[in-house]
Amino acid sequence: MTTALGIIAGGGDLPRAVATVAREAGREVFVVALRGSLTEDWVVEFRHEWVSLGEPGRAFKALKAAGATDILLAGRVERPKFSELKLDAKGVMVLPKVVAAARRGDDALLRALVALFEHEGFRALGVAEAAPGLVSGEGPLGRIAPTDDHKADIARGFAIVRALGALDVGQAAAVCEGLALAVEAAEGTDAMIARIGSLREALRGTAAKKRGVLVKALKPTQDAKTDMPVIGVATVRNAGAVGLAGIALEAGKALIVDKRAVAAEADRLGLFVAGMAPEP
Amino acid sequence: MTTALGIIAGGGDLPRAVATVAREAGREVFVVALRGSLTEDWVVEFRHEWVSLGEPGRAFKALKAAGATDILLAGRVERPKFSELKLDAKGVMVLPKVVAAARRGDDALLRALVALFEHEGFRALGVAEAAPGLVSGEGPLGRIAPTDDHKADIARGFAIVRALGALDVGQAAAVCEGLALAVEAAEGTDAMIARIGSLREALRGTAAKKRGVLVKALKPTQDAKTDMPVIGVATVRNAGAVGLAGIALEAGKALIVDKRAVAAEADRLGLFVAGMAPEP
Repeated sequence: MTTALGIIAGGGDLPRAVATVAREAGREVFVVALRGSLTEDWVVEFRHEWVSLGEPGRAFKALKAAGATDILLAGRVERPKFSELKLDAKGVMVLPKVVAAARRGDDALLRALVALFEHEGFRALGVAEAAPGLVSGEGPLGRIAPTDDHKADIARGFAIVRALGALDVGQAAAVCEGLALAVEAAEGTDAMIARIGSLREALRGTAAKKRGVLVKALKPTQDAKTDMPVIGVATVRNAGAVGLAGIALEAGKALIVDKRAVAAEADRLGLFVAGMAPEP
Repeated sequence: MTTALGIIAGGGDLPRAVATVAREAGREVFVVALRGSLTEDWVVEFRHEWVSLGEPGRAFKALKAAGATDILLAGRVERPKFSELKLDAKGVMVLPKVVAAARRGDDALLRALVALFEHEGFRALGVAEAAPGLVSGEGPLGRIAPTDDHKADIARGFAIVRALGALDVGQAAAVCEGLALAVEAAEGTDAMIARIGSLREALRGTAAKKRGVLVKALKPTQDAKTDMPVIGVATVRNAGAVGLAGIALEAGKALIVDKRAVAAEADRLGLFVAGMAPEP
């Protein structure tokens, strides 16, 4: 018998998708909802407890009471204003470590959070283990495949994302015919995609004539337990709105929330969504 | 006797500053104003000719008639829609090379333009040679110096800009207590700075409590003849408006348009503007 799965849930669509898939697979789910990061109200569908980043003691207690020995961290975690953070006794103890990690970058912060739970005796899973159906496959997801020109932009995009990722900067970049249109830092992928629409049309595509690709990849500094790249229907819609021709992910190293809906939306808008085989 | 200096002028404040400094130093100046890139009307103060990127023949002829054997390229060059470009006979000949260069990135485009003029027998100068007074020095420009915390962010900023620069992506990044706030791609430095204001205040500084630094550096793929990083009063004002604590440049490898005004504005707003010694 498997024990309950504790989902430490930040913002975005991923935590809900993981919780739903895990429950459909017959597993009991308990959600630790991160105050300030999780802003949607889907948690009411699950047993849950709200905690701030400064209340690990409260999270540990709730998870133990729920019988969860496995945990996973999913979704966007917002950096708190540490001076305004609500703290419990454990939080006071570990805060210096968390603040120091936050100064080294977002991944360091996420890894520190996972380490906190592991140190308390929980087993940390990756989303890919708990919900393998969300993991990107190889090849196009819908009916449209990238052309050779797109593949050249995809290769350049991966090179940029890897270089940035090695420095814990961001996971995404957009490239159009060799030109780096936009690179992600603290603003997040959606905001990065949106600003492509502000560039002159000579540099980018349009809804009528799509050009350029979005590339999203795991940072080399990340491990799959904390922050695998995620796309969903909104990502496809946003990419289409600024004239991008498609989205490329690494096969096996990214998550797609609702593959069927993503494929349908990509086909409807004329975009590709493709999982690229890892380089040899 | 020195010959006239031909300035191939794109957008921004730099070309005018170079033209003005060169004229004040007693040199005759002729401006080739790049249609679609230069949008200000200061060229009327100088002998000039408007040309599009597809009219190198027209530029060569005008420069020769003006007695200019030295040329320099200054300012932002916008990528044209090549299909809509006005072409002269030389333009038709060289266009394939320019388009191919443009696909490899912005620097490749600028280098290809300089190579065009060199191939025609002109001597290409860097801005630093023609207007050495604009080159960044070492240390703070105004009264405020970076703290040790700022220096840690500056070091991380330079690491990010170098990694990005090696891939011909952008010249600038902003870092606040270890977090990469923003990274420049096709949008340019001003737009990059402006969007920092959209990040949550927990991540960045404010006008009252300044945090984080802007770093701008030459790409390793760039040579000083084509696209040295430039800042001016507007850069200081924009950085201050989004709560950044200061601006760091590489000493000797960046240009400052109107140092006195930049120092005064930095002092007034409480920012540092510092030239950092190159790493050994």
